[in-house]
Amino acid sequence: MSKREKPTILVVNDDGIDAPGIKVLLEAVQELGRVVVVAPDSPQSATGHAITIARPLRLNQVHIYPGVEMYKVSGTPVDCVKLAVNKVFKGKKPDLCVSGINHGLNHSINVIYSGTMSAAVEGAIEGIPSIGFSYDDFSYDADFSGCVPYIKKIAAEVLEKTLPQGTLLNVNFPKTDALKGIKICRQANAKWAEEFDERQDPHSNPYYWLTGVFQLNDKGEDTDVWALNNGFVSVVPVQYDLTAHHAIPLLNTWNLDV
Amino acid sequence: MSKREKPTILVVNDDGIDAPGIKVLLEAVQELGRVVVVAPDSPQSATGHAITIARPLRLNQVHIYPGVEMYKVSGTPVDCVKLAVNKVFKGKKPDLCVSGINHGLNHSINVIYSGTMSAAVEGAIEGIPSIGFSYDDFSYDADFSGCVPYIKKIAAEVLEKTLPQGTLLNVNFPKTDALKGIKICRQANAKWAEEFDERQDPHSNPYYWLTGVFQLNDKGEDTDVWALNNGFVSVVPVQYDLTAHHAIPLLNTWNLDV
Repeated sequence: MSKREKPTILVVNDDGIDAPGIKVLLEAVQELGRVVVVAPDSPQSATGHAITIARPLRLNQVHIYPGVEMYKVSGTPVDCVKLAVNKVFKGKKPDLCVSGINHGLNHSINVIYSGTMSAAVEGAIEGIPSIGFSYDDFSYDADFSGCVPYIKKIAAEVLEKTLPQGTLLNVNFPKTDALKGIKICRQANAKWAEEFDERQDPHSNPYYWLTGVFQLNDKGEDTDVWALNNGFVSVVPVQYDLTAHHAIPLLNTWNLDV
Repeated sequence: MSKREKPTILVVNDDGIDAPGIKVLLEAVQELGRVVVVAPDSPQSATGHAITIARPLRLNQVHIYPGVEMYKVSGTPVDCVKLAVNKVFKGKKPDLCVSGINHGLNHSINVIYSGTMSAAVEGAIEGIPSIGFSYDDFSYDADFSGCVPYIKKIAAEVLEKTLPQGTLLNVNFPKTDALKGIKICRQANAKWAEEFDERQDPHSNPYYWLTGVFQLNDKGEDTDVWALNNGFVSVVPVQYDLTAHHAIPLLNTWNLDV
């Protein structure tokens, strides 16, 4: 970006264009550049890195907040990023992509299920400096105000400095009145032990609601879960190269010839 | 698993329970253990790691191939793995999870969009040794026969040996009559330059079909794309810890205090 031009900032989320979290996020970054919002027209939580290929997409400009350029998309968060780059920015990539603020945390293994984080991952794949933001409160009336100074600071720093090639940031905020600052972390080793709530429909056929119990398998004090449990904002650098490079030498000792 | 018991093998895919690829896969691994198929009741390509939380799921036993225990699920490939572990295997995890054979390749960046690979990733998160298989032919009548000896060999090796903690395998087959063997690879650095086919509906409103052009940004001869282009079966070890560990020291030099 030329030093003289105002940076362009793509704002996306997975809770939908009318979610309170995205309003807080777009207002937090408005002083840093020209904001364009491209977000799903319906809730898209837990859609991961899904894209829409079996049906066409709608992209429509909407006027929700005065003076803010906004578009709603009938697809997933990743669809939003792709449509933003191609149809809204017309190939001239934005200088920053911010996603969120998610209503609910996206620490540890949740990154892989999260539409919020997948949008930021797609931004990074596009070569755009990208950050996902999530807050530990699922409620519609969540008070995001404590997140705002950190969002401004982190976004400004990412705009000014350079994230390593192929990486983005996953930022989570604990619900506390007294944030202790920021910790750079790794993703905690954790999983969801799924449970299904089995019910019967009026025709006596079973159906299942996915639920689950969070299992933390990590006692490290360098993880996002530890940071959040101790009142810190967690910042995890994330990568989208999924190669387990460390496993290649071992596999080369296996005999897989037929 | 006890040496005396027959291994249990979960077979899943993203093309749907009636896809030819899953039939080839389940038949290929049948001699290795007791096969249970849990697969989507409709095509779920490119659904990534999406899970279904906003509506309930159906799980119903079906009888498609004689003697094969099969269930169809009204959800995503990852939902299938979760329902299989919890409701079909009732918490006693299978000894192996195989996903595919996908109609179409899942090399390089495609891992992150692929329902086939996301099912295998979910298997690995569950602690199940897991492998995704994909073949370079999208057609319904694809001839998967060349894949079969490799599938048997790789699945047997994974059952016998131990994949490193937190990893799984991504196996892709090129379309050739003369496979040259297996290459252990890293995921090639590539992306999709999205394009949208813009059309007008009968009411003169625009809609968009997602398409794209594959961009390979990697000249390495140690990548899956190189292997496939040169007639080899590519085997990439994949991990689901998305932390960019190498970026942590740099981020610790940034001033993110507010």
